[in-house]
Amino acid sequence: MKLLLIYAHPEPRSLNGSLRDFAIAHLKTAGHEVKVSDLYDMGWKAPIDANDAPGYDNEKPFNPAIESQRVFAAGTQPADIEEEQAKLLWADAVIFQFPLWWFSMPAILKGWVERVYAYGFAYGVGEHSESHWGDRYGEGSMAGKRAMLVVSMGGWESHYSGRGVNGALDDLLFPIQHGVLFYPGFTVMPPFPIYKTGKMDAARFEQLCKAYGARLDNLFDDKPVQFRRQNAGDYEIPALTLKPHLAPGRHDLGIHLCEDMAPEG
Amino acid sequence: MKLLLIYAHPEPRSLNGSLRDFAIAHLKTAGHEVKVSDLYDMGWKAPIDANDAPGYDNEKPFNPAIESQRVFAAGTQPADIEEEQAKLLWADAVIFQFPLWWFSMPAILKGWVERVYAYGFAYGVGEHSESHWGDRYGEGSMAGKRAMLVVSMGGWESHYSGRGVNGALDDLLFPIQHGVLFYPGFTVMPPFPIYKTGKMDAARFEQLCKAYGARLDNLFDDKPVQFRRQNAGDYEIPALTLKPHLAPGRHDLGIHLCEDMAPEG
Repeated sequence: MKLLLIYAHPEPRSLNGSLRDFAIAHLKTAGHEVKVSDLYDMGWKAPIDANDAPGYDNEKPFNPAIESQRVFAAGTQPADIEEEQAKLLWADAVIFQFPLWWFSMPAILKGWVERVYAYGFAYGVGEHSESHWGDRYGEGSMAGKRAMLVVSMGGWESHYSGRGVNGALDDLLFPIQHGVLFYPGFTVMPPFPIYKTGKMDAARFEQLCKAYGARLDNLFDDKPVQFRRQNAGDYEIPALTLKPHLAPGRHDLGIHLCEDMAPEG
Repeated sequence: MKLLLIYAHPEPRSLNGSLRDFAIAHLKTAGHEVKVSDLYDMGWKAPIDANDAPGYDNEKPFNPAIESQRVFAAGTQPADIEEEQAKLLWADAVIFQFPLWWFSMPAILKGWVERVYAYGFAYGVGEHSESHWGDRYGEGSMAGKRAMLVVSMGGWESHYSGRGVNGALDDLLFPIQHGVLFYPGFTVMPPFPIYKTGKMDAARFEQLCKAYGARLDNLFDDKPVQFRRQNAGDYEIPALTLKPHLAPGRHDLGIHLCEDMAPEG
């Protein structure tokens, strides 16, 4: 299969750098093709601005969405954006590996999302009607591809647990897993979290690689996160609220997961 | 009072630009002192890297936290970082105004957080003991200051409601409101959201300014978001999990809010 690793850490001689190297070697040994976007190494331009819209007429206010749509449709996007889009289209699965900084992805990776996720490519795709509100949340350009977050944290697992002070990891990652991955159609795999990165020794690193390797080996077989598809009947359209009989009375982020089906028969 | 506006939008001739200008004029008319950090206009460097750590010895792996601690303590931080820290220390309240891009803040603002929030300034502050796990989540360098998010979105209010497909706005903003604002000690005010930005006319803009102006007028009187303080007895230390008798059995992000006190007597 074809694997793309989007990697955001400034130091190759780090835990993240070692895990990146491990993953690449492991995937290649398993017979996969691997491409890597090492954002710091590439000097990725983070902020989206008018320079991303060749031919922009600055007599008009710069609207990032409208300009993104224009240059995507015209095929006049900057080369770095086009190359990343081509890698995404090439891949069967995409791994996003990054340290959790201030409870989200690093700025350089956020800027990758903002610039690569063009209007017409990752959003503004598909028709809007009374039963279909665009190809998004389960449909879209990334449909059929898998995606997984590999996230490192200094904090302890309990700090990110369901009752941990930082907020539950799944909830902290919801804007990314649901809003960045599921939105353009990715099948989202459960994240691979690495806690207490300050307390790493050779034995723990070996154990970590074993667990990470197993996740990579089963990437196409493991059960994905069961986010509800927007256009499959669970949400009112166009209000886009979950229908009242589903997870009744609840308002937590967990309502956007399908309930487990009771076994039949 | 002293107000700092951290502003992240690439186009001054935009809804966000107009709201920025409105807020500055409104605050000055009310007699406040105002400083502005217009990140795009400043050409803010987004990614944190070794250039942010003058004197870094590149024989050693670059560790952003350790290097940030070193240059903060030594007073050798880059000037742009020091200036933003000085503005934060100067301010009585800080407004963060930005468009919600991919369900989070723009990359340029995320990079402001990563670079300005130095170790020793915004984290790694205070003692760690059996009853106190650092000055954070309700304590810290920003204690006594108020902060408010002003966030614009193309989507509808229902899409961001408690059962909306995007996730409830308060939950999407939790990593920012709790993780970026409450963490270093800010008193967090409820956000000021602006929905359906594509459907803005003069009448709606006037209405919006009226509502925003009222929020600014009451910034120091309105009731803050009642996040639980980490070291005030609600969390086990060092596991940092919410004690079992509080919000029993629940795992949603709402558990980190104090329950409303029943009126006494």
